[in-house]
Amino acid sequence: MADGRPLFTSSLDRLLSPRSIAIVGASNRMPGIGGFVTANVIRAFGGAIYPVNPREAEVQGLPAFATVEDLPEGIDLAMVVVPALAVPAVVEALARRGVGGVVVITSGFAEVGGEGVALQARLAEIAARTGVRVAGPNCIGFMNLAEGAMANFVLDPTDEIPAGGPVALVSQSGGFGGYMVRKALTAGLGVGWFVSTGNEVDVNIAGVLRHLVERDEVKVLLAFSETLRDPEVFIETARRASELDKPMVVLKAGRSQAAARAAQAHTGSLVGSAEAFDAVCRQHGVFSAGSLEEMLDLGLIFQGGRRARGRRVGIITGSGGAGVMLTDACVLEGLSVPELPAGDQGALLALMPQPFMGSVVNPVDVTAQALAAPGALEGVLTGVPASDAVDMVSPVIIGNPTHPDMYIRAHRSTDKPIAFVSTLLPTSLLDAGVPAYTDPRRAARALAANAEFALRRRRPPVPAPVPDPARIAAARAILADAEPGTALIEADSKRLLALYGAPVTEEALCADADEAVAAAARIGGPVALKIMSVDLPHKSDVGGVRLGLAGDEAVRRGHAAMLGDVARNAPDARIAGVLVQQMVPARIEILCGMTRDPLFGPIVAIGLGGVLVEIIGEAALLRAPFDREDVLEALQAMLGGRLLAGGRGLDAAEADAVARLAMALGDAALELPEVAEIDVNPVRVANGAALAADALVVRA
Amino acid sequence: MADGRPLFTSSLDRLLSPRSIAIVGASNRMPGIGGFVTANVIRAFGGAIYPVNPREAEVQGLPAFATVEDLPEGIDLAMVVVPALAVPAVVEALARRGVGGVVVITSGFAEVGGEGVALQARLAEIAARTGVRVAGPNCIGFMNLAEGAMANFVLDPTDEIPAGGPVALVSQSGGFGGYMVRKALTAGLGVGWFVSTGNEVDVNIAGVLRHLVERDEVKVLLAFSETLRDPEVFIETARRASELDKPMVVLKAGRSQAAARAAQAHTGSLVGSAEAFDAVCRQHGVFSAGSLEEMLDLGLIFQGGRRARGRRVGIITGSGGAGVMLTDACVLEGLSVPELPAGDQGALLALMPQPFMGSVVNPVDVTAQALAAPGALEGVLTGVPASDAVDMVSPVIIGNPTHPDMYIRAHRSTDKPIAFVSTLLPTSLLDAGVPAYTDPRRAARALAANAEFALRRRRPPVPAPVPDPARIAAARAILADAEPGTALIEADSKRLLALYGAPVTEEALCADADEAVAAAARIGGPVALKIMSVDLPHKSDVGGVRLGLAGDEAVRRGHAAMLGDVARNAPDARIAGVLVQQMVPARIEILCGMTRDPLFGPIVAIGLGGVLVEIIGEAALLRAPFDREDVLEALQAMLGGRLLAGGRGLDAAEADAVARLAMALGDAALELPEVAEIDVNPVRVANGAALAADALVVRA
Repeated sequence: MADGRPLFTSSLDRLLSPRSIAIVGASNRMPGIGGFVTANVIRAFGGAIYPVNPREAEVQGLPAFATVEDLPEGIDLAMVVVPALAVPAVVEALARRGVGGVVVITSGFAEVGGEGVALQARLAEIAARTGVRVAGPNCIGFMNLAEGAMANFVLDPTDEIPAGGPVALVSQSGGFGGYMVRKALTAGLGVGWFVSTGNEVDVNIAGVLRHLVERDEVKVLLAFSETLRDPEVFIETARRASELDKPMVVLKAGRSQAAARAAQAHTGSLVGSAEAFDAVCRQHGVFSAGSLEEMLDLGLIFQGGRRARGRRVGIITGSGGAGVMLTDACVLEGLSVPELPAGDQGALLALMPQPFMGSVVNPVDVTAQALAAPGALEGVLTGVPASDAVDMVSPVIIGNPTHPDMYIRAHRSTDKPIAFVSTLLPTSLLDAGVPAYTDPRRAARALAANAEFALRRRRPPVPAPVPDPARIAAARAILADAEPGTALIEADSKRLLALYGAPVTEEALCADADEAVAAAARIGGPVALKIMSVDLPHKSDVGGVRLGLAGDEAVRRGHAAMLGDVARNAPDARIAGVLVQQMVPARIEILCGMTRDPLFGPIVAIGLGGVLVEIIGEAALLRAPFDREDVLEALQAMLGGRLLAGGRGLDAAEADAVARLAMALGDAALELPEVAEIDVNPVRVANGAALAADALVVRA
Repeated sequence: MADGRPLFTSSLDRLLSPRSIAIVGASNRMPGIGGFVTANVIRAFGGAIYPVNPREAEVQGLPAFATVEDLPEGIDLAMVVVPALAVPAVVEALARRGVGGVVVITSGFAEVGGEGVALQARLAEIAARTGVRVAGPNCIGFMNLAEGAMANFVLDPTDEIPAGGPVALVSQSGGFGGYMVRKALTAGLGVGWFVSTGNEVDVNIAGVLRHLVERDEVKVLLAFSETLRDPEVFIETARRASELDKPMVVLKAGRSQAAARAAQAHTGSLVGSAEAFDAVCRQHGVFSAGSLEEMLDLGLIFQGGRRARGRRVGIITGSGGAGVMLTDACVLEGLSVPELPAGDQGALLALMPQPFMGSVVNPVDVTAQALAAPGALEGVLTGVPASDAVDMVSPVIIGNPTHPDMYIRAHRSTDKPIAFVSTLLPTSLLDAGVPAYTDPRRAARALAANAEFALRRRRPPVPAPVPDPARIAAARAILADAEPGTALIEADSKRLLALYGAPVTEEALCADADEAVAAAARIGGPVALKIMSVDLPHKSDVGGVRLGLAGDEAVRRGHAAMLGDVARNAPDARIAGVLVQQMVPARIEILCGMTRDPLFGPIVAIGLGGVLVEIIGEAALLRAPFDREDVLEALQAMLGGRLLAGGRGLDAAEADAVARLAMALGDAALELPEVAEIDVNPVRVANGAALAADALVVRA
């Protein structure tokens, strides 16, 4: 792997890069799905093609085979366009003929419920048993323009075959996939690959992405995903994409509950939580797009392979208003629009007709004067990108460019990312591979994504903790004290977390008042007393908390009063003792918790604690395993980075302590599958420390 | 005004609805600005046209006048396209000829600095003195298609004259304005009016909007604003727009600081704070758009005049994936996608080919089967809008519609808003007035805006408080205790706010320990002691705060200890006394403050208090005057409504107390211009109360 080439061999090679294609259900009928698929295969493919049709001697000019059994052995790919009920037998027969991969276009499987579910199960069983790779059913095929495989009805046979390019598009949904391909082509994306996976009886989105990320000609991966079936492969793909400098953008559907119902009706499958998905994407350098247009906008800026070396944008405009809009958009996206150095300003000014009515500061506003002086405009268009003070450039052109060649030359004069903004999509620029956007916001978003991807620190994946048998044994001994499905008492919860390195308050579980007084004296300063009982997770509701007790007498009196209150309010509670706990100051209270996402496993959340949990509604989420850097990045990404911005926020030592706590929760979750949930609230933060002041570990 | 018609007469009538037009600087030269303006006026205008050109006997087929002095008296509008230095004399001469309005196209005024600034000042002086209304300079004119006035070079004379329509577009920037008009026309907006105001020497954005909102043919107002010069007129326009059911959408430029610099270079003018602008818009029912495309998207859904009666969306799709995306987008925008009632589902199912592979639940997924049965599709396209369970409908069409008439008929079959989603802009639908969008997100945003506008409670404007001389006198007596530019002590700050109805803690300013003990006994329960000194705004830094003192002895000891600490830490501070204050519980701490925005005047902010002010960065802003409803709406709009969502958030009584406090700050700011700033932090909220526990009123 020294040269960056993987030791990866894909079982999808024969399916997606076939040297021979059979079409079962090939047809002369137009319009019609079988006819379209046949025509698309024929018009683009250089290898052998075998139409199968029991009623025709010839299909679209090629000799037809009456049955699958008549086909030669060892065909790479078979397209299946026969009625649903016939599909299992056909795939079984294809497997017997040594076919490498099958694309089942036919619908009428799990998506229609009832008998379709059983039919799909049969198909899944055949794929698993025979080892033949099956894409679909209920998909629209795929398009591999690098190797001339138009094995689809994405495009009509009358549509031009796209020119290809570095962008790979993957979609579960056939209909929306087709919509995406057409829209992508219009937006100027060089789509070289499109794969639809449909009901995913075998081949799924994650597996296709994993295959495509290794292909040399693929430089950008875009995916529309309704249900992610293989999270580990998805994450592994993200890691490889980052390693190979290939941006990956995912548009996740089914984010809302009502949307989940729509997906249910559609694919009968589980939809993971949107927040966990976004967290996993952020953690692994994948863009989670907010809309289809955003996904394509990002694809456009990435496909040329240019990477920003910083976040400084040079803006060239002929309209002050457009320059202001674009500046706003850049700043909103975290980019800067710095003044150009005096030298650069002077050089630009020298180009312009005099007296010059515009500005060379940045935005460089050439005004309408430039229309009369195209030489000057070209000088600016190449001069601004050449400035050392900018990493990226966004010129605004009103309407379609009148001198497209000049803009194209300007684009070629630099290796910095350039995003044009124009009223309409300027096809002359797009055709020449020059990114252009129809709104300042969209151009700025694309440039910001480019910088984010380019400047992201790449580092090896965080390994899961090496299981520590002694630690596991100690933790299980503690867990044994709680019934399955119930929570450990606070004292035990913290002891367990401390095994994993969590910073917790100094404290002692005491059997009586004398022990409590002694513990308080040992801890020093004022202490808190808390009743410990598996029956009383909400201690303060029953008078089971006393705060700020200083001195032997106060501790003794507080102890007695508290036990009295608890005995009165919860006479039947089983009391494990009284926890004597160090009082710690808090400038700010944090919450740190762990839940298990059905798809991605242990997710650790960090948010503001106390009352605010319910009100702020924003948290940093991390999928375990993760490291300190991951935590800091996630905290930086929440609340506009203000939690780490200095002032009243966390200082470096405090952030570090929070990271240690979060990692303790993540490691505990990975090592101890019997821990269902952890809730540490509040984490009290002040004076360079962050201490778990309360904690609840729940057994599965 | 009983019939909703205004008593409004506009001084812009002659300028914007002229019966005669002179063109000073009319020209035969093409391409050229003078030539373009002349040609545009001639090709659209029905009234008399008077070209002025000293060197030509005839301009574009019309007899030319050599000088302004040769023109007949009383021409309504004069376009001025002469060199900048000649402009003042020309406008002066036009005023003498009784011209009603002048559009100065010429640039080279304040936007270029130096002599341009002086030149612009002369123009302003002439406008003010003569009463002639002047639009520009440095603008591109206007387009009033209702009355055939193409007094602009927005469009080239070779561009088709747009068909007109209910949308009015207003822009300060000429270049960006032209960009907007072209983009709007492409997006399917019926642009009937466009006005550019340029450097706004006289006529400004707010004034033009105020004029246009009263025009019957104008139904939607869209504005691009860099600098709002007339906030009162803007707010009055917003009020009228709401009254007349005319949506108004503003795209505000110069939101970022770097953007402010760009605007500076551009117009040499002050840019107001973006947050205050957004708050004013929200408070007055104006949409503040995040991008140009969003502004146009909203214009498109509004221009047909349809209004949603609720937030329930029916979705029709042929692709499950597209249905899921659209559902996501709707839910994200606060809309719902309810299941259709069984009866409606049955009726839809009966239309479909059997066995039906799709869904009639909602999204209604007709699948590819519908392509083969256009009759069924048309039944669904009219059936879903007819359902009582939906208020709006969004059908997805992949690619351009193959049966545009069917979609157009479906749109006409209902009066509910419909937003189509399509790969490309389907011009066949747009031309027929059917709204269509190229991304599910954008369609959902437009539908949500429609519902928001339609369902917004309309109420009369909140009046400023009637000045209360006794209250003002009492407040001024308190203010007199602080030097200008300094803060009142806490006790005085609260006394002042209490005059305006602010709920404050019970407290007493005490001269010595005996008074403090007596006050503590009167207040009851534990109390706080705070040092009061105009020299010590940060009391706790000098040991000037004691909390939770209960009983005479504790108060007396605390008093002595505190005075000792303060004497040691701040020996020179002038001590006004010790404030003895009720301790109040807080489930949550709020901040409430008032600052004066340079543009909009007193703005009251409500946010989370204490440490969190710096971290949350989100606050509800209100421009005074405002009422309780305004406060509740603003609180609802912040933090996703979670602050009022029950649970740990504010209950009704607490929200009410916060509203009273905010209104007290607003009223005080309006009545007392000498109050520069107010800061109430924390407001302690618990048990149905919200009390100002600390306060600072700063004198101007």
